[in-house]
Amino acid sequence: MTASPPRLLTPGPTPLPPEVLAALGQPIIHHRTPQFQAVLQEVADGLKGVFRTSWPVYLLAGSGTAAMEAAVANLCSRGDDALVLRAGKFGERWGELCAAYGVRVIPLDAPWGRVPSPAQVQQALRDHPSVKGVFATLCETSTGVVEDIRGYAQVVQATPAVLVVDAISGLGAEPLETEAWGVDVVVAGSQKALMLPPGLAFITASPKAWGLIERSTSPRYYLSLPLAKKVWDKEQDTPFTPAITLIVALAAALRVIRQEGLDQILERHRKNAEAIRHAAQAMGLALYAEPSCCSRAVTAVAVPPGVDGKKLVKAMRDQHGITIAGGQSELAGKIFRIASMGHIQPDDIRAAIAALERVLGDLGWTFPTGAGSKALAEVLV
Amino acid sequence: MTASPPRLLTPGPTPLPPEVLAALGQPIIHHRTPQFQAVLQEVADGLKGVFRTSWPVYLLAGSGTAAMEAAVANLCSRGDDALVLRAGKFGERWGELCAAYGVRVIPLDAPWGRVPSPAQVQQALRDHPSVKGVFATLCETSTGVVEDIRGYAQVVQATPAVLVVDAISGLGAEPLETEAWGVDVVVAGSQKALMLPPGLAFITASPKAWGLIERSTSPRYYLSLPLAKKVWDKEQDTPFTPAITLIVALAAALRVIRQEGLDQILERHRKNAEAIRHAAQAMGLALYAEPSCCSRAVTAVAVPPGVDGKKLVKAMRDQHGITIAGGQSELAGKIFRIASMGHIQPDDIRAAIAALERVLGDLGWTFPTGAGSKALAEVLV
Repeated sequence: MTASPPRLLTPGPTPLPPEVLAALGQPIIHHRTPQFQAVLQEVADGLKGVFRTSWPVYLLAGSGTAAMEAAVANLCSRGDDALVLRAGKFGERWGELCAAYGVRVIPLDAPWGRVPSPAQVQQALRDHPSVKGVFATLCETSTGVVEDIRGYAQVVQATPAVLVVDAISGLGAEPLETEAWGVDVVVAGSQKALMLPPGLAFITASPKAWGLIERSTSPRYYLSLPLAKKVWDKEQDTPFTPAITLIVALAAALRVIRQEGLDQILERHRKNAEAIRHAAQAMGLALYAEPSCCSRAVTAVAVPPGVDGKKLVKAMRDQHGITIAGGQSELAGKIFRIASMGHIQPDDIRAAIAALERVLGDLGWTFPTGAGSKALAEVLV
Repeated sequence: MTASPPRLLTPGPTPLPPEVLAALGQPIIHHRTPQFQAVLQEVADGLKGVFRTSWPVYLLAGSGTAAMEAAVANLCSRGDDALVLRAGKFGERWGELCAAYGVRVIPLDAPWGRVPSPAQVQQALRDHPSVKGVFATLCETSTGVVEDIRGYAQVVQATPAVLVVDAISGLGAEPLETEAWGVDVVVAGSQKALMLPPGLAFITASPKAWGLIERSTSPRYYLSLPLAKKVWDKEQDTPFTPAITLIVALAAALRVIRQEGLDQILERHRKNAEAIRHAAQAMGLALYAEPSCCSRAVTAVAVPPGVDGKKLVKAMRDQHGITIAGGQSELAGKIFRIASMGHIQPDDIRAAIAALERVLGDLGWTFPTGAGSKALAEVLV
């Protein structure tokens, strides 16, 4: 084990800022009190700023998948058609969720490492005018790509369908102008760029989406948006016991975000991800995602020939205290992923690249000594 | 505001022990690591001890209602019949959940403050042999009653139906011998006698229940038990990002429970609730629940004539720093509730009764000076 502090560079959970840790360690307060009501109001306002919308953002105690399921169950009924963009594991999850609710999945697949184009979405909607919802992924963390949500919104807006975006890994890391771009439903989770532990999920919906929500016949209770709306409209409260501690910590995280400024945060993410890509390439490594759609939130790097990808991730963690992510499902052992979202700092990235240089060397991959750190320093001045 | 430390005597959330607070304030760890796997194994073992079963206890990131919905969605299909015991708000919730899934609700109602008898359950099952599930509530926090789960289990066991128990408020406070009594499904939540913040829920199921779970046609994904079982059996993991921080804190809470011992904890709850009842009666107050079914977890007290129940709860909190709960729904303003579960200590109860004496006096209720504290001291020696 290393003597340096452990560092987390995974695409969820991400490191917690001191303000969030302090909030988590506070004695708990009751949720039906003026004290907690004030916190709920604060996060309601703050979330609208981050979601870039004037619509209410509903809170769910659950992980991001709970909010994805809330989108499917509230928008779709058995027998409906859904266009599902699948560019990785999380796009596939949209398909699995739709199938679980008896919704017919019309897949629009991209080779992993790439994303579907708006023109493909447009063509698919022409071919299938029955489609009620188009399900996309802002940042597909399994492959490190970012989808063209703005482009999709332009074509979906012109149809009766709604555009639903899994922004779990992207919100607060990638640009997403929910209302201005014409996105209908956005779901997100706490443990990514919002810098919180997992266990809190979010969903917001456009007036167009509410038209579908009011007509859905899918069973739902805990994830019911009409119920959440009714309770919020009537008493600015949640229908079920909220994840109090996480919501108090969310207020702290939103203050951290407000202080830095969302535009500055997005630019920091852009630069950090660029620096990681530059460093990886300088070490002779290939990026997994196409250059045109590399995410700011997480960078997927191909494991070089002759190197054991699982050993690489393990050595980073056990010998250097740096937790990065391996590949998931069919990408296990083939890629590794370095996150750059939320509270991940340039120092974390420097430590990760320095450790990566040593681990790659130990595992037999040769490159000019210090090339990664040198390239990193050129971007992260 | 009072200068004394604020005290929480609500039936969820309950106060957090220092061990739990310390765990919550730790830097977060990644969930796909040997470090977190060890935590998961520890809580898997510990939960079996508290749930009094050898079956796996599955973890859900969500509040207790999520686990209730998991029970309904995994056991029942549209058109099934369910016998729903309704002795308060949470019994009614079982009915609402069943209705949301198209399950026909056969209600077995008890007047609030009382509970259905095992003989009534037996008769209802004879009248409705089609019933697949009997839905009960260990501790009905809305009225302060405890149901006769052992008695229900005896009659349900002799039928093809399964007995499903909402033990959200009761687990770790009331005796519940899941496997020995023949209970089929138990759901629980984190923010009650388990001494954690809300946001983590639990469910365990008997082999008899698994027969139904495998045949259910209700839509489910996030709350799917077959999926949770598959992932647990294969890799001792959760299908979706777990509520890492709460699970790490759960390990700490389970150590606190193990150290005191479950039997000792149940006895402490019994005594604390008895003391609260004794004190309330000495102040001339009437208990809301029938003497035969008073819960150890929470005591419901009738607001005396001429006293404003909402003002009482507010004065306790704002003038004395003591948070207790008012009545819910139709009981709003008519009862107040003092919890005695989890980490609530005799000192908290002493402070609550002392404050209650002053607040009742201020609101015009007369009783022998110090009668509540004196009665309390007779039990809590």
